[in-house]
Amino acid sequence: MAGSSFGNNFTVTTWGESHGKALGAVIDGCPAGIPLSEKDIQVFLDRRKPGQSDLSTQRNETDQCEILSGTFEGLTTGTPISVIVYNKDQRSKDYTDISQAFRPGHADYTYFEKYGIRDYRGGGRSSGRETLGRVMAGAVASKILSSIGVTSICYSKSVGPVEVSAYDEDAIFKNPVYMPDMEAAKKAEEYIRECKENKESVGGVVECRIKGLPVGIGEPVFEKTEALLAQAVMSIGAVKGFEIGDGFLASEKKGSENNDSFYMDGRKVRKSTNHSGGVLGGITDGDEIVFRAAIKPTPSISLPQNTVTSDGAEVEMVVCGRHDPVIVPRAVVVVESMALITLTDLLFSDMSSRISKVEKLYV
Amino acid sequence: MAGSSFGNNFTVTTWGESHGKALGAVIDGCPAGIPLSEKDIQVFLDRRKPGQSDLSTQRNETDQCEILSGTFEGLTTGTPISVIVYNKDQRSKDYTDISQAFRPGHADYTYFEKYGIRDYRGGGRSSGRETLGRVMAGAVASKILSSIGVTSICYSKSVGPVEVSAYDEDAIFKNPVYMPDMEAAKKAEEYIRECKENKESVGGVVECRIKGLPVGIGEPVFEKTEALLAQAVMSIGAVKGFEIGDGFLASEKKGSENNDSFYMDGRKVRKSTNHSGGVLGGITDGDEIVFRAAIKPTPSISLPQNTVTSDGAEVEMVVCGRHDPVIVPRAVVVVESMALITLTDLLFSDMSSRISKVEKLYV
Amino acid sequence: MAGSSFGNNFTVTTWGESHGKALGAVIDGCPAGIPLSEKDIQVFLDRRKPGQSDLSTQRNETDQCEILSGTFEGLTTGTPISVIVYNKDQRSKDYTDISQAFRPGHADYTYFEKYGIRDYRGGGRSSGRETLGRVMAGAVASKILSSIGVTSICYSKSVGPVEVSAYDEDAIFKNPVYMPDMEAAKKAEEYIRECKENKESVGGVVECRIKGLPVGIGEPVFEKTEALLAQAVMSIGAVKGFEIGDGFLASEKKGSENNDSFYMDGRKVRKSTNHSGGVLGGITDGDEIVFRAAIKPTPSISLPQNTVTSDGAEVEMVVCGRHDPVIVPRAVVVVESMALITLTDLLFSDMSSRISKVEKLYV
Amino acid sequence: MAGSSFGNNFTVTTWGESHGKALGAVIDGCPAGIPLSEKDIQVFLDRRKPGQSDLSTQRNETDQCEILSGTFEGLTTGTPISVIVYNKDQRSKDYTDISQAFRPGHADYTYFEKYGIRDYRGGGRSSGRETLGRVMAGAVASKILSSIGVTSICYSKSVGPVEVSAYDEDAIFKNPVYMPDMEAAKKAEEYIRECKENKESVGGVVECRIKGLPVGIGEPVFEKTEALLAQAVMSIGAVKGFEIGDGFLASEKKGSENNDSFYMDGRKVRKSTNHSGGVLGGITDGDEIVFRAAIKPTPSISLPQNTVTSDGAEVEMVVCGRHDPVIVPRAVVVVESMALITLTDLLFSDMSSRISKVEKLYV
Repeated sequence: MAGSSFGNNFTVTTWGESHGKALGAVIDGCPAGIPLSEKDIQVFLDRRKPGQSDLSTQRNETDQCEILSGTFEGLTTGTPISVIVYNKDQRSKDYTDISQAFRPGHADYTYFEKYGIRDYRGGGRSSGRETLGRVMAGAVASKILSSIGVTSICYSKSVGPVEVSAYDEDAIFKNPVYMPDMEAAKKAEEYIRECKENKESVGGVVECRIKGLPVGIGEPVFEKTEALLAQAVMSIGAVKGFEIGDGFLASEKKGSENNDSFYMDGRKVRKSTNHSGGVLGGITDGDEIVFRAAIKPTPSISLPQNTVTSDGAEVEMVVCGRHDPVIVPRAVVVVESMALITLTDLLFSDMSSRISKVEKLYV
Repeated sequence: MAGSSFGNNFTVTTWGESHGKALGAVIDGCPAGIPLSEKDIQVFLDRRKPGQSDLSTQRNETDQCEILSGTFEGLTTGTPISVIVYNKDQRSKDYTDISQAFRPGHADYTYFEKYGIRDYRGGGRSSGRETLGRVMAGAVASKILSSIGVTSICYSKSVGPVEVSAYDEDAIFKNPVYMPDMEAAKKAEEYIRECKENKESVGGVVECRIKGLPVGIGEPVFEKTEALLAQAVMSIGAVKGFEIGDGFLASEKKGSENNDSFYMDGRKVRKSTNHSGGVLGGITDGDEIVFRAAIKPTPSISLPQNTVTSDGAEVEMVVCGRHDPVIVPRAVVVVESMALITLTDLLFSDMSSRISKVEKLYV
Repeated sequence: MAGSSFGNNFTVTTWGESHGKALGAVIDGCPAGIPLSEKDIQVFLDRRKPGQSDLSTQRNETDQCEILSGTFEGLTTGTPISVIVYNKDQRSKDYTDISQAFRPGHADYTYFEKYGIRDYRGGGRSSGRETLGRVMAGAVASKILSSIGVTSICYSKSVGPVEVSAYDEDAIFKNPVYMPDMEAAKKAEEYIRECKENKESVGGVVECRIKGLPVGIGEPVFEKTEALLAQAVMSIGAVKGFEIGDGFLASEKKGSENNDSFYMDGRKVRKSTNHSGGVLGGITDGDEIVFRAAIKPTPSISLPQNTVTSDGAEVEMVVCGRHDPVIVPRAVVVVESMALITLTDLLFSDMSSRISKVEKLYV
Repeated sequence: MAGSSFGNNFTVTTWGESHGKALGAVIDGCPAGIPLSEKDIQVFLDRRKPGQSDLSTQRNETDQCEILSGTFEGLTTGTPISVIVYNKDQRSKDYTDISQAFRPGHADYTYFEKYGIRDYRGGGRSSGRETLGRVMAGAVASKILSSIGVTSICYSKSVGPVEVSAYDEDAIFKNPVYMPDMEAAKKAEEYIRECKENKESVGGVVECRIKGLPVGIGEPVFEKTEALLAQAVMSIGAVKGFEIGDGFLASEKKGSENNDSFYMDGRKVRKSTNHSGGVLGGITDGDEIVFRAAIKPTPSISLPQNTVTSDGAEVEMVVCGRHDPVIVPRAVVVVESMALITLTDLLFSDMSSRISKVEKLYV
């Protein structure tokens, strides 16, 4: 496995390099009969587009997608959906200086050792632009899940040391850092600008909530919901940690503090709390899925750093090119997309969990 | 995919229930020519065996394994290795009271909803005994990796609020909580006993370090080393968080604080720090792999809890049976095993990364 | 991939060697709620048991299976079903003479070259006993498919030069060669006995028919019904050819002779002929699935043959041990099992083919 | 699994419809360091291009490919290779008449039943144009295999009743039906023209030979070389049968006639005959791989045929559009491509078959 595909029944294969001709995704296993147009996908893409504010890279890409297959007369046909985004504003010469030297915190060195060759222009395949394909697939997954009533929301929980202290969903799309707290957002913006001026970069935490999933999604043992979500989210470049529900905090608590009691809400089973984050034993428990991803500061900084070249020379380098001082806001939609893809795939896996479900469709 | 298999080239399939006849694993893709006996596997199993101290369940299982296939005259043959452990000390009647009520924090409710039927005895498939198969496969992976010079060490980093403050590898196997710090271990033991007396349970954090991996292991995009490690580790019941290198802490730092500089150590490229935890862009960078798993407190506690039954009645229950007040120490070898399985699988995936490697073996 | 697993959503992993302790299968992805006992599986196993007549090996194995996991109170639980058969009548010393020499037509040489080591006793993993696991999984698949009205029948179409010329389903289980034609069966028996006396062996063709599958099963492109059936059937040792519908004969015909016209049977679409064998474009067309497998003569013969040893010496050898002069009759249930496994897996894959099916189960 | 991907370590995902904007393939798992240009791929594409002679469809497609990712400075980089072919000469209106009626022998009916919607233009996804992606991947596989000395040759063995009776490799590329026998080729051409005049179509048999593979390729049990070749080849539309070595003929023979004796050729083990077709027990035996595919006559014929519409009306139809009276010659390169893809994938799977191979690369 070369690793560019994800999913069993609903699968995504991404391809493309930062400064190649184009990037794209092939989405296979999408059910037939779903209304799908480029607009649906563009909404997701626009949330990760560069240049939404002065807080992100000034690379000028409109990131317009084109659907090349898999739909007919506005509906999905059940065949693979190929979506493409052409690169427009490559300034590859910005990267000539890094053709030899390995940028600290980047994959330059490891790609070179693994493959003996690397497309150094803008990080090649290890660039954040690879996530374009994920986001396009996330948009398709979103259409599928919404047809059974699933909704998702994703936002920045912290940027550097600035953490949100309120939760106002309406605020999320009203500030450039996608925080559900306008005041924290303001502080976060200031913090990012300050770091940028100091030629520094910043990390943060992204939180995602998904509502409306049926109870019972997730396969026991190795394909637990939280396990596949963890793979999905940790596979995004720059993500260094994943936790679900109370996560690391749970490790400090006692059983009585961490268990969620059950009670009856009419004929529905409910939990009085949601320390679990919506999963028990790897299977959705009907509650909101809540998880977090820790994102490291952008490794590209304008301060001088010590490094080595592929010839074994020690050098000092300053990373040029057009970088984001923080990728957290643009990563929000990527994290959400990976979650939607994962849950769609697990939903389909669940369809054959009981013989009565099989009979319902075929007898 | 029903989820009981893990890995692409080196695969593990586990099976078995807590109170069934037996549990086991089928390990496929193990290279031929490796000396392997039941003793090799038993060493790993003994580290997760119940009853090693008064801190774990008093269920009396010797957990003796038997190899049923895949070896001949003491060597692996390249064919699937089937290993089995028979259950001996099932006291299934302990569980009759939970045949109707859903234990909080357990998978009782979600299994029931997913499958419409559940083997309630000891948690059935969702029991911690399922990890027997993982540990047996981990022992095999350990033999493979050690043949190319890879070593691993795994231990408890914290138990409830008690965190280690020293790192003495020799200490790890000298205390029942597997801490690399005798003093912290003592406090942890006391804390666990105190909780046990109060009918409570405790969580903690497990840390794992792996040395000697070649640079270049891990497949880009969806099969990054940290992504598959995260799936592997988060698929262990009770794990609620995963982080690699500086993990969540990295999200608070600046780029210059988080990047690891490169320098030359003779002809070898080295990093001056290891904030990355041994991976860059999903590919091993030659440094030690360091990751942590957050483990929730055992959901089985002897305090009364509110819950509901499968008939929709609200009840108060006290979970009987023989439980661990803390599973962290016994989880240590499970976490290590999952890491070894994952890295073995990724090692094999890397073999075809360059045409020169292919030629080296076949021309 | 080490190749011992088959299927995406309904998966089978087999393990075990001819003269090892046991052989078995792990069947994962079986829906919950299906009544399943050892008896159900034994019916299938008994059809491939040695010693049913004097036409098969006199190795005395009762091949009694034991279910070790995956069922509870007589029903499947959705968790992996582990089934085991212990070897009883190994006479491994029969095989000492072949520990060095490679038997012509067998996998001795290729296993030795691939792995550098081989379990020579009875062919080890490449023995026909490996198919025990397939047959046990086939029995489970049969239970699943029968719950939606699918039935299957499989038989010998020819043995050496003796071909059936009638089709009487009732006859199939009334003769030891499983032919739907008592007269042909008699001739086939005579032919086999004659060959046996001449220390020779015989091949043949197995035909399989499956009725009642819904229209629409099979995934386009690489997972066409006929493609996966071909893999499944060609993966049985000794199978050298596969064809569906008119198969090789179709290559000689004209379009108008090979196309099946459609007509309406009330409100149902029907085909006036079934040259297609029940598939169009890889997807079931509602007609009977009809395919054939060509089986080579048993490579073990008692005539002297020229071969070489692992040391590079040329020798003449006579293969001892207890062999079937023909494996066709015992292969019948193996071919049927592989077909049932494949179609079950494809049935589950189809469940998410339309968004309306997804909505039917979850909205 | 939606079925548009093939392979474990060397994977191909194809996408695109006959009358969509474009068709393409994503080839993942290609080792780094291989010289690859569009020219290399075009050589393969040109062999399946329409309009090479008056024997194939007059649809005017140049089928020029463009590599969008995965190479840098003329070499593969180890990242996914995305290759695209834009459709140029779609005459979709030719197909308006079949938007309601199901063409006999085509997938119109089964797609409609499976998905509830179908792109009827030119067969949509079930069109032979889907094989463009396979051929492009085959060209890449060819580059990989040739670097370890593997060569392949593929040709028409028969067209309708006309079978080759000589084997002259030089002849293959000198006649439009790709036969290794100029005389037979002439007869085949005449036969095709005659059928075309009679509004009929023709089938045939393709044979493929692959030399130079190492002994030991192929994974036991379900991933035997012949099993995966069978899946690969049977997944090509219109293929109804597959056989390896003596194939169906073997079923009529006796053991002594079918077994291949071993002898020593210097220090090399050789077989005196090749009834096996180059595989023993699913693993390559060092001999030439020889297999055949039976191809049905093109279902599109200009004679009137009885069929039904999606509304349930019985109609007589004449299939318009531009069709091949025979697809055998154009299928030759598709069959060869699928074989090369399969064997490349199996080659990589073999790399971890022995611990000594692992050590050779990493110690």
